Amino acid sequence: MRGLMMDSQLLTTELLKHAARNYRHIEIVTRTVEGPIHRYTIGEAKRRIEKLADALVNMGVQPGDRVGVIGWNTYRQFEMYYAVGGIGAVLHTVNPRLGPENAGYVINHAEDKFLFFDNTFAPLVAALKPHVPCVKRFVAMTSREHAPAFPGELDIYDEIVERGRENFDWPEFDENTAVAMCYTSGTTGEPKGVVYSHRSVVIQSFAACLPTAMGLGEGDVLLPVVPMFHVNAWNAPYSAMLVGAKQVFPGPRLDGEGLYEMFEAEKVTFSSGVPTVWLNLLHYLEKTGKKLNYLKRGMCGGSALPEALIRGYAKYGVELQQGWGMTEMSPIGTVNVLPPNLRELPAEERIKHQVKQGRALPFVDMRIVSPEGKVLPHDGEQDGHLQVRGPCIIKDYYKREGKTLTTDGWFDTGDVALIDEDGFLQITDRSKDVIKTGGEWVSSIDIENAALLHPAVAQAGVIGVTHPKWQERPLLVVVKKEGAETSSEEVREFLKDKLDKIAWPDAVEFIQEMPLGATGKVLKTELRKMFGSYQLPE
Amino acid sequence: MRGLMMDSQLLTTELLKHAARNYRHIEIVTRTVEGPIHRYTIGEAKRRIEKLADALVNMGVQPGDRVGVIGWNTYRQFEMYYAVGGIGAVLHTVNPRLGPENAGYVINHAEDKFLFFDNTFAPLVAALKPHVPCVKRFVAMTSREHAPAFPGELDIYDEIVERGRENFDWPEFDENTAVAMCYTSGTTGEPKGVVYSHRSVVIQSFAACLPTAMGLGEGDVLLPVVPMFHVNAWNAPYSAMLVGAKQVFPGPRLDGEGLYEMFEAEKVTFSSGVPTVWLNLLHYLEKTGKKLNYLKRGMCGGSALPEALIRGYAKYGVELQQGWGMTEMSPIGTVNVLPPNLRELPAEERIKHQVKQGRALPFVDMRIVSPEGKVLPHDGEQDGHLQVRGPCIIKDYYKREGKTLTTDGWFDTGDVALIDEDGFLQITDRSKDVIKTGGEWVSSIDIENAALLHPAVAQAGVIGVTHPKWQERPLLVVVKKEGAETSSEEVREFLKDKLDKIAWPDAVEFIQEMPLGATGKVLKTELRKMFGSYQLPE
Repeated sequence: MRGLMMDSQLLTTELLKHAARNYRHIEIVTRTVEGPIHRYTIGEAKRRIEKLADALVNMGVQPGDRVGVIGWNTYRQFEMYYAVGGIGAVLHTVNPRLGPENAGYVINHAEDKFLFFDNTFAPLVAALKPHVPCVKRFVAMTSREHAPAFPGELDIYDEIVERGRENFDWPEFDENTAVAMCYTSGTTGEPKGVVYSHRSVVIQSFAACLPTAMGLGEGDVLLPVVPMFHVNAWNAPYSAMLVGAKQVFPGPRLDGEGLYEMFEAEKVTFSSGVPTVWLNLLHYLEKTGKKLNYLKRGMCGGSALPEALIRGYAKYGVELQQGWGMTEMSPIGTVNVLPPNLRELPAEERIKHQVKQGRALPFVDMRIVSPEGKVLPHDGEQDGHLQVRGPCIIKDYYKREGKTLTTDGWFDTGDVALIDEDGFLQITDRSKDVIKTGGEWVSSIDIENAALLHPAVAQAGVIGVTHPKWQERPLLVVVKKEGAETSSEEVREFLKDKLDKIAWPDAVEFIQEMPLGATGKVLKTELRKMFGSYQLPE
Repeated sequence: MRGLMMDSQLLTTELLKHAARNYRHIEIVTRTVEGPIHRYTIGEAKRRIEKLADALVNMGVQPGDRVGVIGWNTYRQFEMYYAVGGIGAVLHTVNPRLGPENAGYVINHAEDKFLFFDNTFAPLVAALKPHVPCVKRFVAMTSREHAPAFPGELDIYDEIVERGRENFDWPEFDENTAVAMCYTSGTTGEPKGVVYSHRSVVIQSFAACLPTAMGLGEGDVLLPVVPMFHVNAWNAPYSAMLVGAKQVFPGPRLDGEGLYEMFEAEKVTFSSGVPTVWLNLLHYLEKTGKKLNYLKRGMCGGSALPEALIRGYAKYGVELQQGWGMTEMSPIGTVNVLPPNLRELPAEERIKHQVKQGRALPFVDMRIVSPEGKVLPHDGEQDGHLQVRGPCIIKDYYKREGKTLTTDGWFDTGDVALIDEDGFLQITDRSKDVIKTGGEWVSSIDIENAALLHPAVAQAGVIGVTHPKWQERPLLVVVKKEGAETSSEEVREFLKDKLDKIAWPDAVEFIQEMPLGATGKVLKTELRKMFGSYQLPE
């Protein structure tokens, strides 16, 4: 028997309309690429978005067309999110950190017909132009007076918006229609395209705003440091509109000082970023002695949140919460919001729970599977391959042969993890980075985290290298802090009582610079190239 | 172009699984129909629900079958919510306040194959039995030792649960499958069946939990006074599980003292009920001098929230928030959570905003239409017919001929309302209760609210009666407070400066008892019968 409710669809346009009806005076503030601060309200944004939508249709953007964008977090890219998706086209956010070769690859693979870009990336796009024949029109996201140098025809974003008519009549269509796409960072092999639907974005927005996740509400001021060019800035431009949070876009200035200025000037209460961003801001605070007067909470994801960061921000009255997810998961899978009973623990006890990845959002189903394919209990002890399922999780990569899911329909995250009886996820390692030694698994992340506690260690990466007896043994690769001195033996001694005997690295090597991927993660593939034939000491 | 996300469905079973994974230790507490307090955890509830689901399947409950239930808010009815819906059957909650005739009508109309009931309603069900031949099995929701007297075969709920096996394998099916149904109270004509889907319930849960709506979270303790036998207790048993709120079910004791005891003993932070319930509790507090030590917020709906109640609870540190909705809307349409700028106003200013019905939940689209069918602006001035649209709103009544929606797909709520530029809805009246006088509309509710400010007035109902010159003029019908004295002229004088001249009632009549419908609303139809041929003074 069917329910008898309306067949209304979960479209992102409804988020825009909802926000404009209820929160029209709430501001959206941007540090522009051109320099000055730009501010307007949700009501004004909606009018511009409707003009942009109308103009895009008149430019020939058809439902299903891919529209590429390479830009910073600004109000213009925010407008693109709603206008492009709202007309049934697909916003393809291109990560400039992929490098020119991969950026060209993803634009061609997605067959972007239009390419919008910030002035910063004009040279990149100019260089790409001959290699992306699918692109019919290039648009600089600026005004005429700031138009960048560019070979050949170039449209100007603000002029396009001006050409549009107000009161655009938004089309209604199936919520499973694609709204946006984003490619994985491609640390192994070619980048792979993930295609989000209106439905997945709306469900993610609902789940992310719950008090048990981000807990955003009216009166909150959200500054997403995570880029709109990768996984929709963790869905921030959608989630914020659901609850009427003020949005602050930092543009290109992501250094500690630049962020600090925006945090204070706009009274930011909540922010989100990868550990490096939080670390830079913390260094800035420590160096200048400045305080955070408004920031209350932050979400940290992308890679494991170090204990030192949690403690560092606690001193400033900011609760840093770990989030875990993937491009393939829209992206939030878990958030570590402590339940009341753990929140009341003394700080030293509490932190043991805070370093975990947190609990799953509703409609994110997680399981742990042994190497033999057995589903393991959530007992907080047995770890295995982490697999996920749900309406915001990928079923197929864009135009890619081969199976994306397990035969019974789960997506294997590539992580090794355990889940405890209260639902807390703890990532042990990436499957491919786990060190298999004497029939057991050792987590490279555990060793890296322990190494980072050493005062002279700035960055650490651990790989397994071949060992005649144990198959593999861990090698720790370290970048020293500027001016700090230490030795291989000293670091090993430091780690001796911090790790299980089996995880104690057999050797420590120092390098000048850590190879990092497009989202700031240590490139283990590069470390393996560098140390592929490494001879462990006897 | 389609998104490439999994086709996972929004099923209520996922709410249950989510809660059991993350909140297994959170309690569900019931004042049972038998008397004692019953308490168990979400983890234990899930095990019983799975046993019940298995037992229902073995009893022959098929997907699509309607399972009737007449019961108080208890853990047993809570279990029914998840078990019946989870196996693809439909829980038909029957409102005992409909009276035997209507109760029999809805059971037959829904063709309930099974009927579950609390001991309180055993005599009602025994009397109904000969008239509901569709029901094949009757089940008393109790244990063997408390089995009520009943003519013929009777199953016992706790024995059924015991027969089920643990680890039930929940089926997966389309989210548009019916999960529950509820009939309107039938104040005019026969009750009409509203059929909720898994999808509508899940979307309503997400929307209701937002900080801009109920803002429920972990650590909250929710006591729904609104009955599970009508519109799913405003969705509480679903919403609470999404965020891990502790649930407290008051069973049959809904008087001020009974509720107060539960509020204090279980540290209830949030409750929901109709004005009468809140009024009774307030009287109890005033009479006994007791305080509310834990309650922070309450939602009041069903009919307009009187100013006096808001002020009354403010003294106890409780923020009473108005909600508006309908059986046909799953049911929440709006909640009055003040935005930060209004929250900061002095109490006397703030209350002008608090008496409005609030702002729409996301995916509740509202419009105001003039009697001529013109869509009116949301300017806070022009009122008209309130029409709604969205995924949680009815498209058809169950097995009923005739159009439910407007030709362009909106549901007419039967309310007259205005909406201001900030999205605040203000119900002026029911369309059919509006008094049409000299070409203008006068709100019967405005007159009633003004009359309720008179110290001798306990209840007030206003209807339009025929007038030779003005077509209609308002007649105010009053029930006096116990022991209070007043006169028709005194009440009219009292109202003189509180109403526009056009709304000043031409006459006041006193009656002993106000006719009320099954959900506690004044039955204007009955007032019209009583005063149909009323002669207004010249």
